[in-house]
Amino acid sequence: MSNVKVILDCDPGHDDAISIILAASKVSTLQIEAITTVAGNVEVEKNTLNALKVCDIIGLEDVPVAQGADRPIIKEKEIAEEIHGESGLDGPKLPENPTKIIIEQHAVDLIIEKVLESEGDITLVPTGPLTNIAMAMIREPKIIPKIKEIVLMGGGTFGNWTPAAEFNIYVDAEAAKVVFESGAPITMFGLDVTHQALATETVVNELSTIDNKVAHFVVELLQFFNKTYKEHFGFEAGPVHDVCTVAYLIDPTIFEMKHVHVDIETKGEHTYGMTCVDVLGVTGKEPNVQFATNLDGNKFWDLMKKALESYS
Amino acid sequence: MSNVKVILDCDPGHDDAISIILAASKVSTLQIEAITTVAGNVEVEKNTLNALKVCDIIGLEDVPVAQGADRPIIKEKEIAEEIHGESGLDGPKLPENPTKIIIEQHAVDLIIEKVLESEGDITLVPTGPLTNIAMAMIREPKIIPKIKEIVLMGGGTFGNWTPAAEFNIYVDAEAAKVVFESGAPITMFGLDVTHQALATETVVNELSTIDNKVAHFVVELLQFFNKTYKEHFGFEAGPVHDVCTVAYLIDPTIFEMKHVHVDIETKGEHTYGMTCVDVLGVTGKEPNVQFATNLDGNKFWDLMKKALESYS
Amino acid sequence: MSNVKVILDCDPGHDDAISIILAASKVSTLQIEAITTVAGNVEVEKNTLNALKVCDIIGLEDVPVAQGADRPIIKEKEIAEEIHGESGLDGPKLPENPTKIIIEQHAVDLIIEKVLESEGDITLVPTGPLTNIAMAMIREPKIIPKIKEIVLMGGGTFGNWTPAAEFNIYVDAEAAKVVFESGAPITMFGLDVTHQALATETVVNELSTIDNKVAHFVVELLQFFNKTYKEHFGFEAGPVHDVCTVAYLIDPTIFEMKHVHVDIETKGEHTYGMTCVDVLGVTGKEPNVQFATNLDGNKFWDLMKKALESYS
Amino acid sequence: MSNVKVILDCDPGHDDAISIILAASKVSTLQIEAITTVAGNVEVEKNTLNALKVCDIIGLEDVPVAQGADRPIIKEKEIAEEIHGESGLDGPKLPENPTKIIIEQHAVDLIIEKVLESEGDITLVPTGPLTNIAMAMIREPKIIPKIKEIVLMGGGTFGNWTPAAEFNIYVDAEAAKVVFESGAPITMFGLDVTHQALATETVVNELSTIDNKVAHFVVELLQFFNKTYKEHFGFEAGPVHDVCTVAYLIDPTIFEMKHVHVDIETKGEHTYGMTCVDVLGVTGKEPNVQFATNLDGNKFWDLMKKALESYS
Ligand SMILES: [Ca+2]
Ligand SMILES: [Ca+2]
Ligand SMILES: [Ca+2]
Ligand SMILES: [Ca+2]
Repeated sequence: MSNVKVILDCDPGHDDAISIILAASKVSTLQIEAITTVAGNVEVEKNTLNALKVCDIIGLEDVPVAQGADRPIIKEKEIAEEIHGESGLDGPKLPENPTKIIIEQHAVDLIIEKVLESEGDITLVPTGPLTNIAMAMIREPKIIPKIKEIVLMGGGTFGNWTPAAEFNIYVDAEAAKVVFESGAPITMFGLDVTHQALATETVVNELSTIDNKVAHFVVELLQFFNKTYKEHFGFEAGPVHDVCTVAYLIDPTIFEMKHVHVDIETKGEHTYGMTCVDVLGVTGKEPNVQFATNLDGNKFWDLMKKALESYS
Repeated sequence: MSNVKVILDCDPGHDDAISIILAASKVSTLQIEAITTVAGNVEVEKNTLNALKVCDIIGLEDVPVAQGADRPIIKEKEIAEEIHGESGLDGPKLPENPTKIIIEQHAVDLIIEKVLESEGDITLVPTGPLTNIAMAMIREPKIIPKIKEIVLMGGGTFGNWTPAAEFNIYVDAEAAKVVFESGAPITMFGLDVTHQALATETVVNELSTIDNKVAHFVVELLQFFNKTYKEHFGFEAGPVHDVCTVAYLIDPTIFEMKHVHVDIETKGEHTYGMTCVDVLGVTGKEPNVQFATNLDGNKFWDLMKKALESYS
Repeated sequence: MSNVKVILDCDPGHDDAISIILAASKVSTLQIEAITTVAGNVEVEKNTLNALKVCDIIGLEDVPVAQGADRPIIKEKEIAEEIHGESGLDGPKLPENPTKIIIEQHAVDLIIEKVLESEGDITLVPTGPLTNIAMAMIREPKIIPKIKEIVLMGGGTFGNWTPAAEFNIYVDAEAAKVVFESGAPITMFGLDVTHQALATETVVNELSTIDNKVAHFVVELLQFFNKTYKEHFGFEAGPVHDVCTVAYLIDPTIFEMKHVHVDIETKGEHTYGMTCVDVLGVTGKEPNVQFATNLDGNKFWDLMKKALESYS
Repeated sequence: MSNVKVILDCDPGHDDAISIILAASKVSTLQIEAITTVAGNVEVEKNTLNALKVCDIIGLEDVPVAQGADRPIIKEKEIAEEIHGESGLDGPKLPENPTKIIIEQHAVDLIIEKVLESEGDITLVPTGPLTNIAMAMIREPKIIPKIKEIVLMGGGTFGNWTPAAEFNIYVDAEAAKVVFESGAPITMFGLDVTHQALATETVVNELSTIDNKVAHFVVELLQFFNKTYKEHFGFEAGPVHDVCTVAYLIDPTIFEMKHVHVDIETKGEHTYGMTCVDVLGVTGKEPNVQFATNLDGNKFWDLMKKALESYS
């Protein structure tokens, strides 16, 4: 299988970090063109620092990391320290000062440049708010027809930040509207499927048997994440939302997909940031999104296990 | 068990009709004070005629039937002929001219009068749009503290008329907002639970064995309803939404309930008429609704079967 | 000139009171079929009491007074004590217990009955929120084609309660939407013209020379109203908004009118209750409102003076 | 008087062109740091070409011209060919191929760079949609406290593109919201004052007596603009909206100003893009805008005349 060129646009973030680790592992078929960061779980500077630390831990040296938007396009900034801790990546001991440094270019400019220079073979993988992707599209609409696919974590038929809206979309619903209405091909992993990607005790125990630095790091991330999900949402295990995107790109057979129409609500009083997923096909609108409905938990965690075993 | 006084406010409608039949059966603990009709599935005149015909079929003579609102409060009228057929009760052969006739009083006035004259022991059971209930509350706010409970079919965490909104609430979301914000105790049967009340082939076959006029009528209703649900929504069996309300009042142990906060969206671009159900408790708002999450299908259909057997 | 049959639907209110006085004067060509009251400036009970007191003062015995809606259709109740004082008619000494009493019928029912029984020759004159009129239309849509004209005070191209919205429309914008979209002929006196109907010092001095009980009452109303307008809005003189409606029906040549399209905003974040008046004709929509743009101050106050002189 | 450093952010546009000419004239106290263009009256490429042509005509060689956003941030693109003709600057004969060329840098980057490098002494003068300014603020929030002032043409208490909204704000209300809520000092010339800046026949005749190339060009612009304003809006003369911004910076005594609060409506059904100007002070919110209410027409056109005479 030929490599899939990706830009990982993220706000690490426990599940973002694990996504990077999966994407960079030896079982991965992805070629990481760049990692770009965005304000989301915590402020963009913290997210960037976390991205650099993760790169350090897994020895990801050649991939450029660029910092992006510090705030949503229109809305006030909102962060999720409740879930990811003050650093945005609380739990494991992290390197104080990562050796890797960011490039000078703004993430939005890097995305534009990479896509314009490409042969139409770059997949964008946003696992945070869609601010950078939307700003790139607004700034340079010529990138839109050159994007191969946008494989994102966000939204769902229900919410976790409000009853109607998931965090990534809620933080910048106007950005989401720009992206979903852009015409670029979108594959969406919302809460419907990511809440099936649970790092249960069994899963964590199994991963704990892998004895290398990266596997230990992931286990510590999962332990912290599970703890806050239990405290904040009453969940028995934390869902590793973002990892679905990368897992899908490596092995799409893990997931069941449905081609549906999705609209983004930006005007509602109680529904700002909702992804209105037309599962029943009642709107009569053309499908614009490949929407993940189910995952095979065994296959998913097997892939993760093999990925962690591939580190040394 | 002492009787529960109810006003059935409905738009029959296949499942509304079955609700009336269950409520009037010998296994029922309900005392029907009145049946009131509202524009919904079809125009109010048709819904009224259907209510009268159902009364004729089951011999419900003493209960007054009053006709109510012909249109939503604010929104344009919308009907659902796709589901219930042109008459609103297509399928079985119905009496051409029912002998029962409506009373002169407007449904809204009847509701106000009954509740004001009551000892605070009347439960309203709306299984259509909430127009009549809201108009009664607007017209005479003094009824609000005297309503014992509002046990309604409507809404859910997902929609069937739009991706976000269920038909009853969508048809008159402003009415729903008035009712849900009134402070009256609300028990809500939304799509989450009503989609579990499926008249499967097994169920229909079982009910077909009951040999009386009313049972035959119900079976014919279910056969038509199942057909349109298959054609329109691709469902294997039709959900008898409205029946949950009456079943709950007769035997609450059929259902699992959760006390949650619900807001009604009236401003959204894609989410008008959504009931925003705070299942995860993320809004921090006080619960205002008993929300049905699950039903025990065996108990539910057993109750229905006994009800039909009680007719002669 | 033949008589114009009117129902005065009001929330007296200083300018509502003066409207009644003008309509009931000997120079008036109006035949008052009924006075109906609505929550607005203050609670409906106070507005009703004020209406009865005004009738007492001017000896208006044969006209039925009916009480209407106590709250807006959808929105929370909002009142304007800042402008009209605690009683809703502060200033003059009022009779403690008026001899006139309200009829039992609800205002909405009275409006429906009068219009249905009429030969299509009744003009509705709302000078408060449009709640009663809208509720009558919702309750009995058959009245709509029988209404001769709705001559109302409300709205404008600018606001006084918010930067975008005038009080009467803001208090119940959903009601206004129902009325403006009903198809009934509407003549609208908004702030653009009513802010020209100023009870300046010269005007008040002139009216003060008329020596009868009703004239004294009106002068005291104007003195109080001018005081609160100065304190609250910094106006040199108070505008007798509502009086424009009755003045127009007696002598339309006082006003310049323009046929325009008007939409009611109910969704805006900062613009709820705005009447969007298409003065420049940029929407391309069909005119649905006769909109007053200017008045002839001399003619207006001359009429008022003659009306007051006609009392004894 | 010391010079005022300005960036003219525009969509020429007849009145934008005249603004540039006034700002670059010998009577001007402005120092033009850059001209940046934005999609608005017509597509951004046309607006850029027009800016370059205007620079050619008036010999403005040293000022960099940078092209900016090709589309609004969130909304669909909308243009105003009805008013400015197909080229965006129809009327006068324009140089086919201007000798001046744009710089490579994107307008948004140029604005960020100039402001960050400044000593806090740069005034932004947007006379088109606020897309570039908002995108600069979103991309680099550090510019906000360094902006001396934003002197803009847009909005008003009434609209010209819809009954509620003026064109510049309507085209990108989300951008306007970002700018008005940014905290940067804003001076706003809306339709209330710009409709007083009328190029009447008398004015045009007077300017026609000035015999130089630039004056002839301006007269031809005004003649075309007056024609379309008459055809489209029925105005007797065209208002040179944008010129108010530059005139104010040269001679603020031409204008009467009021310190008010302004909110931007982005949610309304009929009011998208309205600037809600709290002229009466009813919101109780802190003023955030210096709002122009009146201009002295003689002083305004005298300034313009002297500016044109200063060209040779
Ligand atoms: Ca993330
Ligand atoms: Ca029903
Ligand atoms: Ca009034
Ligand atoms: Ca312009």
